[in-house]
Amino acid sequence: MRKPRLMTPGPAPVPEEVLLELARPVIHHRSAEAKVVMTEVTAGLKDVFRTKNDVMILTASGTGAMEAAVVNTVPPGGKAIVLNAGYFSNRWVSVCKAYGINAVSLDTEWGHPVDPEQVANALKLHPDAACVMGTLSETSTGTGHPVEAIGKIVAGTDAVFAVDGISGIGAMECQTDAWGVDILCVGSQKALMLPPGLAFISVSEKAWAKIDAFESRSFYFNLKMARKKAKEFDTPFTPAHTLILALRASLRMILAEGIENVWERHRRMSEGCQEGIKALGLELFSARPAEGLTAFRVPAGLKDSDIRNGLVKKFGITTVGGQDKLKGHIIRIGHMGYTDELDVISGLAALEMVLSDLGFEVEPGQAVTAAQRVFIGPTSAVAR
Amino acid sequence: MRKPRLMTPGPAPVPEEVLLELARPVIHHRSAEAKVVMTEVTAGLKDVFRTKNDVMILTASGTGAMEAAVVNTVPPGGKAIVLNAGYFSNRWVSVCKAYGINAVSLDTEWGHPVDPEQVANALKLHPDAACVMGTLSETSTGTGHPVEAIGKIVAGTDAVFAVDGISGIGAMECQTDAWGVDILCVGSQKALMLPPGLAFISVSEKAWAKIDAFESRSFYFNLKMARKKAKEFDTPFTPAHTLILALRASLRMILAEGIENVWERHRRMSEGCQEGIKALGLELFSARPAEGLTAFRVPAGLKDSDIRNGLVKKFGITTVGGQDKLKGHIIRIGHMGYTDELDVISGLAALEMVLSDLGFEVEPGQAVTAAQRVFIGPTSAVAR
Repeated sequence: MRKPRLMTPGPAPVPEEVLLELARPVIHHRSAEAKVVMTEVTAGLKDVFRTKNDVMILTASGTGAMEAAVVNTVPPGGKAIVLNAGYFSNRWVSVCKAYGINAVSLDTEWGHPVDPEQVANALKLHPDAACVMGTLSETSTGTGHPVEAIGKIVAGTDAVFAVDGISGIGAMECQTDAWGVDILCVGSQKALMLPPGLAFISVSEKAWAKIDAFESRSFYFNLKMARKKAKEFDTPFTPAHTLILALRASLRMILAEGIENVWERHRRMSEGCQEGIKALGLELFSARPAEGLTAFRVPAGLKDSDIRNGLVKKFGITTVGGQDKLKGHIIRIGHMGYTDELDVISGLAALEMVLSDLGFEVEPGQAVTAAQRVFIGPTSAVAR
Repeated sequence: MRKPRLMTPGPAPVPEEVLLELARPVIHHRSAEAKVVMTEVTAGLKDVFRTKNDVMILTASGTGAMEAAVVNTVPPGGKAIVLNAGYFSNRWVSVCKAYGINAVSLDTEWGHPVDPEQVANALKLHPDAACVMGTLSETSTGTGHPVEAIGKIVAGTDAVFAVDGISGIGAMECQTDAWGVDILCVGSQKALMLPPGLAFISVSEKAWAKIDAFESRSFYFNLKMARKKAKEFDTPFTPAHTLILALRASLRMILAEGIENVWERHRRMSEGCQEGIKALGLELFSARPAEGLTAFRVPAGLKDSDIRNGLVKKFGITTVGGQDKLKGHIIRIGHMGYTDELDVISGLAALEMVLSDLGFEVEPGQAVTAAQRVFIGPTSAVAR
């Protein structure tokens, strides 16, 4: 027996009761029944995103929501500032390029958080930038960015702040309205505990003013059309409706736990995983770890593929390696969504045993107990 | 008890064994296991589409595939000819408009098939058109268009032929390669027996030559990127992977039946439904009915909503009314995908009873027996 354990930073595990929703007979997406579902999930998403802004559901990967943000807020030939600190934030640049947008790439070393001061300077240098594009949790490096501080800076300018919250939302605190996030892009397959296939986008009044000022160059990602339909709890095109039914179930679970408690659980899992990794003498990759995943450097003398294959073969644990220039250099363990402290402990215990198999010196339990110390710590006792 | 019966022309019913695939634990879309699935479904889709061309899977509604066709084949400021004969074929015009493409709209009266002669003339008048955009089955009017004849005409020109096969594929014969369909756009939620959320697009060598000649203006719908990934049985972005697992199951069912037999089943259901409707003294809307749905005019003195609500309330049957200028004037009954002759008979029997309730003169069984006569006819006996 090899029990499958998905410990990737997306897709993330989906609760059984959410999976079962997917197996229900398909209903018509324009029926009265479907509108009731759309009404509930729209309210639930706003609650989770901490926003009163419009929230729209797109049938697309998270990248589709990013494309919607770009093509709707930056007019043809316009300018954007991209907070570029990893493989996924660099995607903002690629999307801008496709639409002929002048993307000013503000490069930050991978694994390091964006410096808000730099954003302030860039905005002074480029007061004509329509949009600042950033990331809540950079999945490629496992880094959380200071969205709150950046949001305050962007709020004082004419630009709107678009945030890729694809792997961040639900795993890390994001006070969309309070932090000045004008556009939030979210994917279904991360901490929202769903399979991939849906993307969500929230849009502020400030962003709508920009969007309403010119014609969208995309039909499928036309946010004005999406807003019109969302007001009637509908979508412009046939949505991935079974996933919307499943979304209702996952949102109910998240809201029953309470979004603050969900963030706190991820904070704990993240801290526990980090302490475990460090206890093994391994080096965390990120200077400011995100809370939905932990990235660590492959120890000298070992191959990332040997470690990852060992985890799969011995314990059915799927993790991911590095992307692009980080290929072979890091391993990323996901702990987002339908994941708890014991999953982190399982992952660390497996890592201990696989590393030991590969000849890496490990004292059995050293990572596990370090994580346990975090989990039984005073903060957790208070929070639960 | 009210047993739900989805008789809409998309979404269409999904077999229980396909639904159950959706409830399986999520696997990572870049795993070896996922590649095996992608390899099988890519081959299966080619088989169903009758093509040797590249087939790519998009996470989007069918409209997303149409947008991909438009933005990749027609360069900025270029020209397209749209065979405009209904609500959905008019969407080609809307997508072209969003991208600043000059769409020459060849208007055909709704409910009538496009005249191939007209297409030939338009191509002579507009030899600079990069693409002719048509429809296999126009869902809004229930009309099948002569794709084979049009394909032969377009093949003799420089233009490529893009066909919206969203509600057609699987329900109506489409010999993609033999008929000269350069780009075929398909949706998951119709005769392919899946929930909505995936779109498929096939691209011929002739179309690739056009696509390769300029930069795609969309990132999410960049077909060059999709082709590159498809060659490795992968996708550029996280796909709706549970739907791909379900696709494997539905394709296995379709290929076990044999695509020719699937078409023949739909042809029979279509003919049976038409004969039933006519036997009630009702008027078919389309001059050339599509085979996945039947549209009929609402009889004088009755309201479409009364008929449709009666079907829902009494028998749990969901149908759809008319769109746009056909609102209130027609009712459309879907019989595509996981649907057989007894489903058509059930629909007709229910219609008889609901019409009778509304004071419309009906002899019980008159529609049902007309359909049965088709189903027990000599053609069917030979085909099965």
